[in-house]
Amino acid sequence: MTRLNWGMIGGGEGSQIGPAHRMGAQADGNFVLAAGALDHDAVRGKDYAQRLGIASDRAYGNWQEMLDGEKGRDDRVDLVTVATPNSTHFEITKAFLEAGFNVLCEKPMTMTVEEGEEIVKIARSSGKICAVNYCYSAYPMVREMRHRVARGEIGKIRLIVVNFSHGHHGDAGDADNPRVRWRYDPAMAGVSGQFADCGIHALHMASFIAGDEVEKISADFASTISSRELEDDAMVNFRMEGGSVGRLWTSSVAIGRQHGFDIQIFGETGGFKWWAEQPGQVMYTPLGGRTQIMEKGESGLSDEASRLSRVAIAHPEGFPMAVANIYVDLAAAIRGEPHGDFPTAVDGLRSMAAVHQAVASAKDNGAWVDARPLSLR
Amino acid sequence: MTRLNWGMIGGGEGSQIGPAHRMGAQADGNFVLAAGALDHDAVRGKDYAQRLGIASDRAYGNWQEMLDGEKGRDDRVDLVTVATPNSTHFEITKAFLEAGFNVLCEKPMTMTVEEGEEIVKIARSSGKICAVNYCYSAYPMVREMRHRVARGEIGKIRLIVVNFSHGHHGDAGDADNPRVRWRYDPAMAGVSGQFADCGIHALHMASFIAGDEVEKISADFASTISSRELEDDAMVNFRMEGGSVGRLWTSSVAIGRQHGFDIQIFGETGGFKWWAEQPGQVMYTPLGGRTQIMEKGESGLSDEASRLSRVAIAHPEGFPMAVANIYVDLAAAIRGEPHGDFPTAVDGLRSMAAVHQAVASAKDNGAWVDARPLSLR
Amino acid sequence: MTRLNWGMIGGGEGSQIGPAHRMGAQADGNFVLAAGALDHDAVRGKDYAQRLGIASDRAYGNWQEMLDGEKGRDDRVDLVTVATPNSTHFEITKAFLEAGFNVLCEKPMTMTVEEGEEIVKIARSSGKICAVNYCYSAYPMVREMRHRVARGEIGKIRLIVVNFSHGHHGDAGDADNPRVRWRYDPAMAGVSGQFADCGIHALHMASFIAGDEVEKISADFASTISSRELEDDAMVNFRMEGGSVGRLWTSSVAIGRQHGFDIQIFGETGGFKWWAEQPGQVMYTPLGGRTQIMEKGESGLSDEASRLSRVAIAHPEGFPMAVANIYVDLAAAIRGEPHGDFPTAVDGLRSMAAVHQAVASAKDNGAWVDARPLSLR
Amino acid sequence: MTRLNWGMIGGGEGSQIGPAHRMGAQADGNFVLAAGALDHDAVRGKDYAQRLGIASDRAYGNWQEMLDGEKGRDDRVDLVTVATPNSTHFEITKAFLEAGFNVLCEKPMTMTVEEGEEIVKIARSSGKICAVNYCYSAYPMVREMRHRVARGEIGKIRLIVVNFSHGHHGDAGDADNPRVRWRYDPAMAGVSGQFADCGIHALHMASFIAGDEVEKISADFASTISSRELEDDAMVNFRMEGGSVGRLWTSSVAIGRQHGFDIQIFGETGGFKWWAEQPGQVMYTPLGGRTQIMEKGESGLSDEASRLSRVAIAHPEGFPMAVANIYVDLAAAIRGEPHGDFPTAVDGLRSMAAVHQAVASAKDNGAWVDARPLSLR
Repeated sequence: MTRLNWGMIGGGEGSQIGPAHRMGAQADGNFVLAAGALDHDAVRGKDYAQRLGIASDRAYGNWQEMLDGEKGRDDRVDLVTVATPNSTHFEITKAFLEAGFNVLCEKPMTMTVEEGEEIVKIARSSGKICAVNYCYSAYPMVREMRHRVARGEIGKIRLIVVNFSHGHHGDAGDADNPRVRWRYDPAMAGVSGQFADCGIHALHMASFIAGDEVEKISADFASTISSRELEDDAMVNFRMEGGSVGRLWTSSVAIGRQHGFDIQIFGETGGFKWWAEQPGQVMYTPLGGRTQIMEKGESGLSDEASRLSRVAIAHPEGFPMAVANIYVDLAAAIRGEPHGDFPTAVDGLRSMAAVHQAVASAKDNGAWVDARPLSLR
Repeated sequence: MTRLNWGMIGGGEGSQIGPAHRMGAQADGNFVLAAGALDHDAVRGKDYAQRLGIASDRAYGNWQEMLDGEKGRDDRVDLVTVATPNSTHFEITKAFLEAGFNVLCEKPMTMTVEEGEEIVKIARSSGKICAVNYCYSAYPMVREMRHRVARGEIGKIRLIVVNFSHGHHGDAGDADNPRVRWRYDPAMAGVSGQFADCGIHALHMASFIAGDEVEKISADFASTISSRELEDDAMVNFRMEGGSVGRLWTSSVAIGRQHGFDIQIFGETGGFKWWAEQPGQVMYTPLGGRTQIMEKGESGLSDEASRLSRVAIAHPEGFPMAVANIYVDLAAAIRGEPHGDFPTAVDGLRSMAAVHQAVASAKDNGAWVDARPLSLR
Repeated sequence: MTRLNWGMIGGGEGSQIGPAHRMGAQADGNFVLAAGALDHDAVRGKDYAQRLGIASDRAYGNWQEMLDGEKGRDDRVDLVTVATPNSTHFEITKAFLEAGFNVLCEKPMTMTVEEGEEIVKIARSSGKICAVNYCYSAYPMVREMRHRVARGEIGKIRLIVVNFSHGHHGDAGDADNPRVRWRYDPAMAGVSGQFADCGIHALHMASFIAGDEVEKISADFASTISSRELEDDAMVNFRMEGGSVGRLWTSSVAIGRQHGFDIQIFGETGGFKWWAEQPGQVMYTPLGGRTQIMEKGESGLSDEASRLSRVAIAHPEGFPMAVANIYVDLAAAIRGEPHGDFPTAVDGLRSMAAVHQAVASAKDNGAWVDARPLSLR
Repeated sequence: MTRLNWGMIGGGEGSQIGPAHRMGAQADGNFVLAAGALDHDAVRGKDYAQRLGIASDRAYGNWQEMLDGEKGRDDRVDLVTVATPNSTHFEITKAFLEAGFNVLCEKPMTMTVEEGEEIVKIARSSGKICAVNYCYSAYPMVREMRHRVARGEIGKIRLIVVNFSHGHHGDAGDADNPRVRWRYDPAMAGVSGQFADCGIHALHMASFIAGDEVEKISADFASTISSRELEDDAMVNFRMEGGSVGRLWTSSVAIGRQHGFDIQIFGETGGFKWWAEQPGQVMYTPLGGRTQIMEKGESGLSDEASRLSRVAIAHPEGFPMAVANIYVDLAAAIRGEPHGDFPTAVDGLRSMAAVHQAVASAKDNGAWVDARPLSLR
């Protein structure tokens, strides 16, 4: 095995998502952090890069410099992770794909549906990987649920109930807190607040496990803190292409919920429940039977779940290892080996369409609308 | 203290709700089961009544006989509980109220809004008690939440999320099971299935704790088992008169959920969570603080919660004791003593209006409609 | 069914255990509270008795008056419950048994082993019932575990781990609190504090579920609050007659534990876990399989568990209903009908022997001693 | 920051602990896997090493070759991790320390107390790091409890209750399973089975959080599966030097317990509870107050817990990140920077003394014995 070279854009000192990517990329020894443009402040970014072990000539001041610097190297980075502010994802991802780099982009991949369609096209024509970090889908027990749904263990899915609700923006006094305020300001966050932030993780999870796509949605948005222009609470009813009913609640004012991401899948012959705060367990109830606690690491799990588990049964693996699983599959794909199924630009595009259509529905009193991008109807 | 005489209509041998009423009425020694018309089969009903200790001359063959027999007695029953099939609640409740009896009616109080309006009027003009058994509202910790909301402990309520979803009708093969089938057949169940069965408990709970009333609703109903005419799954978004946002999910196909009734209340300065399967606890999270586990029986609870608690802290009290609390308050009211706040015909009427309006909304693709009866707008 | 007459000694206004007995005896309509000597203050006791609906001539000033008054009546009480301070249990129970009454005595039945032996003899010779209120054994799911152990579902039992530990005496400042202080004072509490108070419930539970008796024990007692003469924390290792290993921890300084009573039973082919704060569930794990959540009310439970369940699956039933189950079985026994298996004087005697022997072991640095009364070795 | 070179002995393909060390060492980019003797089968070990990215000249056939090869290099490994079978820990650790390498040794550090004393001496005289992988002590919330105990938040500790009990060796049919059998065979496992395997983690945790050392112990060992010579279940009562009472239960036949490691600490003014299966939370109960859920990542945590947390509140971090925290502190120490407090050879020695003394106590019917090595009394 040769280690792959990895570069990072954004994720500078103090960022939340940067460490998760670094742990994820490095934990399994697949990637070496070889290049970075980590901060919008070039000096700070270069300094931090070198403290992280990046050579000085690959510690770049901004993403354009990094693009220029890397594209000419023989040992150019095998993968670029884009973890910058949301509004810049599109142009950076586009530029690196066009220059022939593999890209892992943080969500949301773009701000508009049109940009999403463009990224999908570029990724296809480039032949390069464009992945999007819906990392929850890489938890072993999430993969296990998907596997069991696919093989019919709970029959045809009737109903999916997914919540991603926390209370960390529940303080009205945060109107002046820059870490919170931008999220509810259309000038910075775009058309949607909480739904675009957490709701799309939830929607992706529903599709991922069900092996089906969201067809139409009806949204009820609320700004429960009145100073907010964008929604801080949303209920989105949906229907899958295969006919399943969906309920999605997302909130940032649900004081007392911490991570607050859970999903329940109900089929003809059983149900699953999974919870992101205890991700190594799935509650499984067969029709007419008792609820059973499935554990990551138990015998009899699918190859997919086993492959992505790392320590013994009931030893928690956590969020960094879910991110690491995305990188495991990316490394395999880059090496041209058989691999798992990481989320791609198509998933990023679907999310953008769902966001824009949910906004339209909410403005139209919850009218049902097609949630899909035009290219995928 | 003189024990009160109590009569029961319905709740015969093998019924689910009958024992709960008998335990509830008798546990505190307030009521003696003195009369009953317990079964639509007169012989079985009389026999069972006598096995329960009712004297043979007060073991009646049907409710009309019981009405005739009781109204002339000096020791006539002080309270009649109506626990018959739903479609008969109206006529029995009406007849007993008009004859000057106090009534506790099982939910739903009536099948139509018009009947509900009529019961409210009769109850008012009779001066008698007409209570409806929204018994969850009588759990000590539910009363505690209500008390704390009323005194502003979590500030103005922004959001209420309430679920009453179970999986006990998740078997499509139950189409021929008479205990299940009638619930989804409009000829027997009326206009709504799952929402009328469990959803109205959830809606009452939201109003009860918030001290506010539901103003408008938007409903999405689904029959996830296609042979069912009425809904087995429903999502109802709502707005309270005071402006709070509401989300209500109710389902009978959520395999793996047992009792499945929980409520979360989010205000400006904190949140509560309560769960009917562990009813002696409330999770309370102050804004910016840690989640705390409030326990029934802890020091510092409100008089209302303390009055309705019976055994030491963390000793579970259970559903029968919640029903008993309804009877405690009824006994106090019948005796003319100061008392708590049991649900009444007005609550029963509100539920009926909400059911019919939710049905209308669901048929109209989730259009927002006024949830209130005309008399209460 | 004729209602049975019931009398109560102790359990006056403000007592903790009194209400549990009244709810338990009355909830199912088997018993009517007909007589009582409820308080050591005769005036208060008579007054309270009448407020509870007892006729004035059967509201007695003390237990001797009650014994005199009742024994001559044709409608004498069918059962006497003794819920007085511990040191009086022996003489009252003895007196009522000798006068031909059935007795339910609160635990501990006596203060000495000799007294315990005497009660056992008197109960036998009288032919009357002498029950002891180890009420936890009457929870449906406790009976279910016992049933499953008996039929070999988890194979031979290897290990029992039982804890009854709370933190309600964790305040050293309570040295002057009369509700706490007496428990650690040998002049009032006898030879043992916490072990005699909660430990014997735990030990009874282990024997009850295992269907086996404790043979020998080794005890480590500690007074973690130094002002206490008697132990507030104890670890007792034991061996059953059938060879199972036992671990019992009981504490009153375990701040944060509320009810704190749980038991785990491990056999050759599976394990059970039960917890008194959520008594309607048992965690069952077959060897090599997943943990399953057994629910009170699920289909397929034993007749014994079904008979003692009252409301639908996952509707909590609680501590008062466990006490009520003891009374259900007592009523059946008094009526001469087939019945369940309530704890009796022999159980009370075994507890006393275990307490005294544990004390001896603890004083002898944990030496292993025979835990059984001489008459049962 | 320069990356440090890291070498590994043992932890070959298919081992359980190998991946945990690799993730731990690499996740933060502090260490690069530069050398290894990974398997007792030299060919397999070299092959696997190269697949993990180790250069061929540093993929060694056994630890002696690695010692020879590394000690002459300028870029010799900065740290050697010893993850071989238990009986070889002593000689390998000794050899590398004596050659001037820093060592992280898996537990148990040695098989005898004498060996433990020797390692302590060698580590001291060499001036090199000798760490032992009691990795649970590196969970942020474990550090947080320790910090709060040290600053007196729960007062003087009265009682520690720690369990490390699982059911993964509950199958008597495993007598022929080589992964299980050796653990209960003194020829391979030494003097103790389950206590030496899991009990010493528990005992270390008690000391670590309390900031105190175990002084004396009394042990009750059992082989609940009769074919086992060594114990598969043990109860160890202990006293700390500071006077705290301790209860430690460890079992491998507790069917239904998975990871099964939890600790409760009770002091004069509060209690903590922590559970290895949900390691980001601590239950904290102040005397007289409500239980509060402390979350990793909440505001107001100690510097130590904050430093070792990596992702947002309630995002689980898991076991690999606990191991990583050990490596974080090792990297800091190797670089000569201020650092945290990883477990060292002294902890390894204490464990060995406790194991041997517990065995002696168990053989002497639970006699109380000094748990400390002679050098530390």
